Amino acid sequence: MNNQTLKLRRIAIDTYHENVAYLHRECEVYRVEGFQALSKIKISANGNKILAVLNVVDDDAIVTPTELGLSEQAYKQLNVSDDCLISVDHAEHPASMDAVRRKINGERLTLEDFVGITQDIAESRYSKMEMAAFLVASGQNSLDRDEVYFLTQAMLQSGQRLNWSEPLVADKHCIGGIPGNRTSMLVVPIVAAHGMLIPKTSSRAITSPAGTADTMEVLAKVNLSPGKLHDIVRKQRGCLAWGGTARLAPVDDMLISVERPLGIDSQGQLVASILSKKLAAGSTHLLIDIPVGPTAKVRHMREALALRKLFEFVGDQLNIHLEVIITDGRQPIGRGIGPTLEARDVMMVLENNPKAPEDLRQKSLELAGRIIEFDPDVRGGRGYAIARDILDSGRALEKMNAIILGQGAHTIDFTPGKHCFEVKACHSGIVTTIDNLQMAKIARIAGAPIDKKAGVDLVHKTGDTVTKGDVIYRIYAEFMSDFEFAKKLVAQNNGYTIEKQ
Amino acid sequence: MNNQTLKLRRIAIDTYHENVAYLHRECEVYRVEGFQALSKIKISANGNKILAVLNVVDDDAIVTPTELGLSEQAYKQLNVSDDCLISVDHAEHPASMDAVRRKINGERLTLEDFVGITQDIAESRYSKMEMAAFLVASGQNSLDRDEVYFLTQAMLQSGQRLNWSEPLVADKHCIGGIPGNRTSMLVVPIVAAHGMLIPKTSSRAITSPAGTADTMEVLAKVNLSPGKLHDIVRKQRGCLAWGGTARLAPVDDMLISVERPLGIDSQGQLVASILSKKLAAGSTHLLIDIPVGPTAKVRHMREALALRKLFEFVGDQLNIHLEVIITDGRQPIGRGIGPTLEARDVMMVLENNPKAPEDLRQKSLELAGRIIEFDPDVRGGRGYAIARDILDSGRALEKMNAIILGQGAHTIDFTPGKHCFEVKACHSGIVTTIDNLQMAKIARIAGAPIDKKAGVDLVHKTGDTVTKGDVIYRIYAEFMSDFEFAKKLVAQNNGYTIEKQ
Repeated sequence: MNNQTLKLRRIAIDTYHENVAYLHRECEVYRVEGFQALSKIKISANGNKILAVLNVVDDDAIVTPTELGLSEQAYKQLNVSDDCLISVDHAEHPASMDAVRRKINGERLTLEDFVGITQDIAESRYSKMEMAAFLVASGQNSLDRDEVYFLTQAMLQSGQRLNWSEPLVADKHCIGGIPGNRTSMLVVPIVAAHGMLIPKTSSRAITSPAGTADTMEVLAKVNLSPGKLHDIVRKQRGCLAWGGTARLAPVDDMLISVERPLGIDSQGQLVASILSKKLAAGSTHLLIDIPVGPTAKVRHMREALALRKLFEFVGDQLNIHLEVIITDGRQPIGRGIGPTLEARDVMMVLENNPKAPEDLRQKSLELAGRIIEFDPDVRGGRGYAIARDILDSGRALEKMNAIILGQGAHTIDFTPGKHCFEVKACHSGIVTTIDNLQMAKIARIAGAPIDKKAGVDLVHKTGDTVTKGDVIYRIYAEFMSDFEFAKKLVAQNNGYTIEKQ
Repeated sequence: MNNQTLKLRRIAIDTYHENVAYLHRECEVYRVEGFQALSKIKISANGNKILAVLNVVDDDAIVTPTELGLSEQAYKQLNVSDDCLISVDHAEHPASMDAVRRKINGERLTLEDFVGITQDIAESRYSKMEMAAFLVASGQNSLDRDEVYFLTQAMLQSGQRLNWSEPLVADKHCIGGIPGNRTSMLVVPIVAAHGMLIPKTSSRAITSPAGTADTMEVLAKVNLSPGKLHDIVRKQRGCLAWGGTARLAPVDDMLISVERPLGIDSQGQLVASILSKKLAAGSTHLLIDIPVGPTAKVRHMREALALRKLFEFVGDQLNIHLEVIITDGRQPIGRGIGPTLEARDVMMVLENNPKAPEDLRQKSLELAGRIIEFDPDVRGGRGYAIARDILDSGRALEKMNAIILGQGAHTIDFTPGKHCFEVKACHSGIVTTIDNLQMAKIARIAGAPIDKKAGVDLVHKTGDTVTKGDVIYRIYAEFMSDFEFAKKLVAQNNGYTIEKQ
């Protein structure tokens, strides 16, 4: 309510998705308005408005009493020159918080409610607390399937949407949780070699030891401009790029930034997150991979089936051709865990190296086959054989090399990290289980994915017979401190169960 | 996992209840650990550990690449000298978040679960997002009455507890929402004059136009050291102090700092919040006032009854003698709304001024009478008459003056704000309703409680017959901008309904 003349100052602090404003404790506006640290304020200048969380400063070197400081994100979003007249006010709650409160009370929300919520989130009107409130209120089983559809639709509307101007744009997505599961890097060259359009964009690892973008980066540039990405896709029918540059379903990214630290997730949020991203990327045909296993994200078949139905229902509403494949998630796929080791596995499969991990090859062929069957000219059941022919003939390798060259090849070096530790069987027997979560944790602690050469290289998989003292896997690290930490973790739990015969 | 030598630096930024750490983007630790802005990190030095939210800095003037910056609160909590070796690591989720996730899944929590949660909150291990998740998950009707008892008990354990070493320590608490409802400032001198111990501590207004602490501050100092407070209570049997200095049920304050901006509250949280604070303050006998009315916090009698039962159940479990009184919350109490105007009303009642607001006098006598009946020597039903005798005889005024002197008298000046606007009846008729929420908003916009002399002074209350053009209330403000804003708000909705006869 007070229009004081505050001078704008950009504060070089990165606060990610949360706008932060800095006012000096002696600032007249702060005193008069009775703001409290952490309260939300509205900043207006030159017709532009943003909301920000207030931090109170006692150091003139950061802001003086006549300045208003804004964190990088907030400064960018306000987007006015430094000499503008700034006015500061108490922020009203975003209007859509009413809908969130109704959801907390157990009410069913409408499409309009969800659109209001996602718009307010997209325009940074929600604090992280408010996003957490929305996520918890709409978590677990509190969204029915129509509401999941509404949420997906609303998230899709929150950003731009790519249009490839082709009738069939294929994509695949795995719900995650299985280390080494780098099938996209095989599926894309096989499917593109078949002639189908598959413009795959992937994320970097956030809680896992490697994402497809991290692994592809061992071989080629993945940070491509939208123009460059389109060029490669037009020429090669496929790409393996990092998806972070396009502003697709931005609300999804913002919700994930809250969901992940909270460690909460629900089927409804998962489905809305994946489908809004894929639809925004312009996909028309989508294959979803749900691995099931005791240490996978989905632990029981009945849960996998419920998730499949939810994907199918929402996919149908949104007019995407969607198929779900439920796969074996009882242990890691392939041998390597970590970007360099996984890239090595992928290239071995493409090169038809007899030592290539067979499980990675088989799973990739199965997925590629299912996608190839999206092609109306392919007879049902023939996809797998077509995929296998493409791989065996070397056409998949050729396509991969063309994509690598197109994106910008990196000098390939599959040498793993310089520190190596061999984990050995402590008794003889049969490997019965390998804990996905523990193996991922060990690879991460060893330095993956930041240190591309760090990770774990599995020697034995479930079903193998081992003798006491046999090497079951190797840990690689670049930094001594990470290496020591990984060794300590293995000493507590090496992730393997070996049953004595 | 990396123990880099970072130099500690105190950053003069106040981030309230949230610890914030600042690392330069070029800092080795930031690069190697793969931290993300807003992720939670663990900071260890000299055996002390704290958790903090990470902000990434690009300005050497704030932190250099070899420094770790900490906000005021975080710096204080870590409590080590600046030359300590600092180590930084990814923070594990607080262990008790497992219980929060179970609550999200609809499970019932145990006392141990709640103790784990409140301990982690008390030790700043929860981010605001995590607190929001807990609040939403335990909001509405998702806590049963045993869980509300467990939560109260856990919140009580989170801080210190005062002991007055007397068998009867009385207190009263109103759940709030009614402007002008300053009964504590009458109940305390009446009850203390009767000889009962009533060491009343109050909060300042947060969303209302005046809290008891703000209003008392017009007359006397309220920011008292614990020693001073004890002295006054011993001598006068009562006090009217600000409760912010003692660390009583600190978790309650931290949860409120999240609950309020979210605009969510539930009966369970309300009961746990009030009872944990009162028990921590050493109360043995407590009177709870629940005003009911269409613009009060509690809108229906059935809701008031449910809340009463919950208070009674939890109070009995925790061995506090608790009574609930359900009062008329259909309009503001007294005439003034805002610290100075409310203080004036209180003093008029104490001085037996015939123009004193009768509703404030009657309600205060009723509440004081009920508290006096906690005295085993008082016959049931006699409390009101005793309270009235104390007030009418001038003994209450005498006691109030003694308390004011004890706390440190301020020069009394009841002159309201210099800008005055008269709101007039737009037609003749009977005042049928006065909107509590709108009147509170008008008083706040006019500047209360920061500007003590700002507020609203009611001339007519419900039931009064008014003629077109009669003044129904006056708005007072200190600052022209606030004044104009309040006038605009009144033009939209003046809060009064006048029914034509």
